Amino acid sequence: MQPLGKSRLEAFSDGVVAIIVTIMVLELKVPHDASLHGLVQLTPLFLSYALSFLVVAILWVNHHHLLHTAHAVTGRMLWLNNHFLFWLSLVPFTTAYIGENHLAPLPVALYGLVLCLAGSAFDLLRRDIARSQASDPALAAMHHRSSRINAASALLYLAAVPLAWVSVWLSLAIYLLVPAAYFMPRNIEKMAAGQQPA
Amino acid sequence: MQPLGKSRLEAFSDGVVAIIVTIMVLELKVPHDASLHGLVQLTPLFLSYALSFLVVAILWVNHHHLLHTAHAVTGRMLWLNNHFLFWLSLVPFTTAYIGENHLAPLPVALYGLVLCLAGSAFDLLRRDIARSQASDPALAAMHHRSSRINAASALLYLAAVPLAWVSVWLSLAIYLLVPAAYFMPRNIEKMAAGQQPA
Amino acid sequence: MQPLGKSRLEAFSDGVVAIIVTIMVLELKVPHDASLHGLVQLTPLFLSYALSFLVVAILWVNHHHLLHTAHAVTGRMLWLNNHFLFWLSLVPFTTAYIGENHLAPLPVALYGLVLCLAGSAFDLLRRDIARSQASDPALAAMHHRSSRINAASALLYLAAVPLAWVSVWLSLAIYLLVPAAYFMPRNIEKMAAGQQPA
Amino acid sequence: MQPLGKSRLEAFSDGVVAIIVTIMVLELKVPHDASLHGLVQLTPLFLSYALSFLVVAILWVNHHHLLHTAHAVTGRMLWLNNHFLFWLSLVPFTTAYIGENHLAPLPVALYGLVLCLAGSAFDLLRRDIARSQASDPALAAMHHRSSRINAASALLYLAAVPLAWVSVWLSLAIYLLVPAAYFMPRNIEKMAAGQQPA
Repeated sequence: MQPLGKSRLEAFSDGVVAIIVTIMVLELKVPHDASLHGLVQLTPLFLSYALSFLVVAILWVNHHHLLHTAHAVTGRMLWLNNHFLFWLSLVPFTTAYIGENHLAPLPVALYGLVLCLAGSAFDLLRRDIARSQASDPALAAMHHRSSRINAASALLYLAAVPLAWVSVWLSLAIYLLVPAAYFMPRNIEKMAAGQQPA
Repeated sequence: MQPLGKSRLEAFSDGVVAIIVTIMVLELKVPHDASLHGLVQLTPLFLSYALSFLVVAILWVNHHHLLHTAHAVTGRMLWLNNHFLFWLSLVPFTTAYIGENHLAPLPVALYGLVLCLAGSAFDLLRRDIARSQASDPALAAMHHRSSRINAASALLYLAAVPLAWVSVWLSLAIYLLVPAAYFMPRNIEKMAAGQQPA
Repeated sequence: MQPLGKSRLEAFSDGVVAIIVTIMVLELKVPHDASLHGLVQLTPLFLSYALSFLVVAILWVNHHHLLHTAHAVTGRMLWLNNHFLFWLSLVPFTTAYIGENHLAPLPVALYGLVLCLAGSAFDLLRRDIARSQASDPALAAMHHRSSRINAASALLYLAAVPLAWVSVWLSLAIYLLVPAAYFMPRNIEKMAAGQQPA
Repeated sequence: MQPLGKSRLEAFSDGVVAIIVTIMVLELKVPHDASLHGLVQLTPLFLSYALSFLVVAILWVNHHHLLHTAHAVTGRMLWLNNHFLFWLSLVPFTTAYIGENHLAPLPVALYGLVLCLAGSAFDLLRRDIARSQASDPALAAMHHRSSRINAASALLYLAAVPLAWVSVWLSLAIYLLVPAAYFMPRNIEKMAAGQQPA
C-alpha cells in the first residue's frame, strides 16, 4: 500500500486552526448599549484576541513551511500533529481567561504555559519529520536551526509562567517579544525570498 | 526546495470565511415564544446578517479570482492574507453590534471601519501578488483596474464612518451601494463570461 | 487565463455545510441535572436536530453529485452557490426555533419556508450547470429528471407552510416524507450502483 | 461518468471532525475570577475534553487509514459516512453532559452509548469499503482484523452503559482502557512503520 499522503493532515490542521482563530472572536461579546464606554471596556479582550491571532497564525505559517518539506506522513506524525492541535485548541480558553481577568497572575501564567506546551509539541513534530529527512543535509540544517528557535521561544514562554507572580507586565512583555522577534527585518527578508523565517 | 503551493493558503482562507459567515447566524437568537412579534423583532439582526453575508461572500469570490492568478505563494503573501483574515474575522462582531443597536452611530461607524480595513488589507494582498506577476501585461492591467475599484470601495467605507454621526442612513446607504455596484448588469455579464467583475 | 477550477467552490461549500450540521448540535443545551427527566425534555430538540442533519446531508450529497458533473465554474455559478449556502445557513436557526416551540405553527411554517428556499436555490444552481452541459444528452436528461424531483420537493415544502396553521402534524409529515422518498428502495439501488438517486 | 472521487468525503469529514474537537473546548467556560479555586473546578470538564479529543482523534486517524485504502466512493459510502458523522457530532454534547454532572450514572452511560454507536457506524463504513475491495486478499485480511478490534471496542462501550449504574468508575475505566489499548507499544511500532495500529 502507498504511504499516507499529507493532504488530510494539512486539511484537518487547517480546519482546526481556522476554527481556533475564529471562535476566539466569539469571546468579544457585543455591548448591549452603543456607548463609547462599552466599546472601550472590550479593549483588553480585543488586544488578547489580536495577540492570540498573531501567535496562532505564526504557528500555522510554521506548520505550513514544515509540512511543505514532508512528502509522506506516518501514523506517528499524525499523532504528534494531533498532540500539537490539542494544546493549540486551549488557546481560545486562555485568551478569554486573560481577557476577562487581565492583570491577574494566574491567567497570565496559564496563557504562557499553554503556548509553551503548544510550541514544544510543534517541536516534537518537527524533530520527527526531520528524522525522516536526515539524508538531506540542507533540510537537516534548516530543521536544526528552526528547532533551536522553537526551543528558545518555548523556554521564554516557560519563564513567563513564574514571572507572572513577580509582575504580569514582565510576562506580557515576553508574549509580545516572541512574535516581534519573528517579524524582525532579517526574517522579513527571508520571507520575501520564500524561506521560513528563523 | 520547491516554492510554497497556494493550496493551503486557499484551504485556510476558505475555512476561516466559511466559519465567519456561519457563526454570524448564531447571533440570530431563537425567540422563546412562537409569536410573529418575536420573529419580527429579529428583522434588524437578519438584515445585518444578510448584508454581511453578501459583503463577505464578495470578498471571498474576489479572493478566489485573485488567487486563481497566482501560481506560488511567498511567506509575505501568507502574512498579507492572515492580515486580511484578521480584519475579516471582526465582521461577525460588528454585524452583531449593528444588529443589536441598529440606529446608533457608533456601531454603524465601526461596521464601516472594519470593512474599510478588510478591503484595504485585501488590496495590499492584491498589490503583492500583482508585483510578482509584473511580467504579464494582461494580468497587470487587470490587477490595476481591480485595485482602483478596491480603493474606491475602501474610501466609501471610510467616508461612512464620520457620516454615521450625521445620519446613520447615509452610512447604511453606502453599505448597500458597494455590493449593489458589484452586481451591476455590466459585471453580471463579465461573470457569465467567467471574468472577475470590476 | 484558465477557467476557474471547482475545488474552492467545493471546499468552501464543504466547510459551510460541515459547520452548519455541527453548530446545530450546540443547541442541545446540556441539562444541569443528571435526571432522566432533564434528558427526556431534550427529545424534541434532538429529533429536530436529527431531521435537519438528514435534510442538510441530502443536499450536501446532491451538491457533491451535481458538482461532480461540472468541470469548470463561472462567477455566476459561484454566486448561485453562495445564494444556496445563504438559505442553508438559516437551517440551524429554524431547527432551534422548531425545537424550542415544537408544536406552534409559526416555527413549523418557517422551517418549511427556509427548506423551500434552499431547495429552490439548489435547483437554480443545477439549471445553470445543466445549461453549460447542454451538449451532453445523457447529462442533460439526468439534470432534467433531478430538476423535476427538486421542484416537487420544493413545492411540498411550500405547501407545508400554510398547512402548519391547519395542523402542524401535516407539515411535519411532509418534512419526514421528503427525506423518506429519497431513501426509497429504488434509490438505494441506484446509490449502490454509484448513481445519484432521484 | 467517472466514479465519485473520495476527496470531498474526506474534506467534509475533516471539517466536521475539526469542528467537533474545537467546539468541545467552548464548554470550558472561563471562570469570572482569577483564583486557583475557580480553575481547579474546571478539572472534570478539562479531563472529559481531553478524553473526548483523544477518542475523536483516534476515530479520525482510523478514518484516514480506512479511506486511504479506497479509490472511489459510492453514494452508499457517502451515507454510511454521514451516519458515522451524525453519532460523532453528539460527542460534544455527551462530553459536556459528563463534565457538568461527573459522577452521575446517566451522563456516564450516555457517553458510552454514543461512542458505541459512533464506533459501530464506523465499522459499517469499513465493511462496505472492504466489500468493494474483496479481490485484494491483503486488504481484506487487514479490514477483517481491524473490524474485530472495532467490534471489541464497541462491545466494551456497550458494556459500560449498564455498568454506570453499578459504579461509574467501572465505566470510566473502560473509557480510558479503549484508547490506552490503541497506544500499546506493539501498535506504536506499527505506526512508526506507517501501518494502521490494530
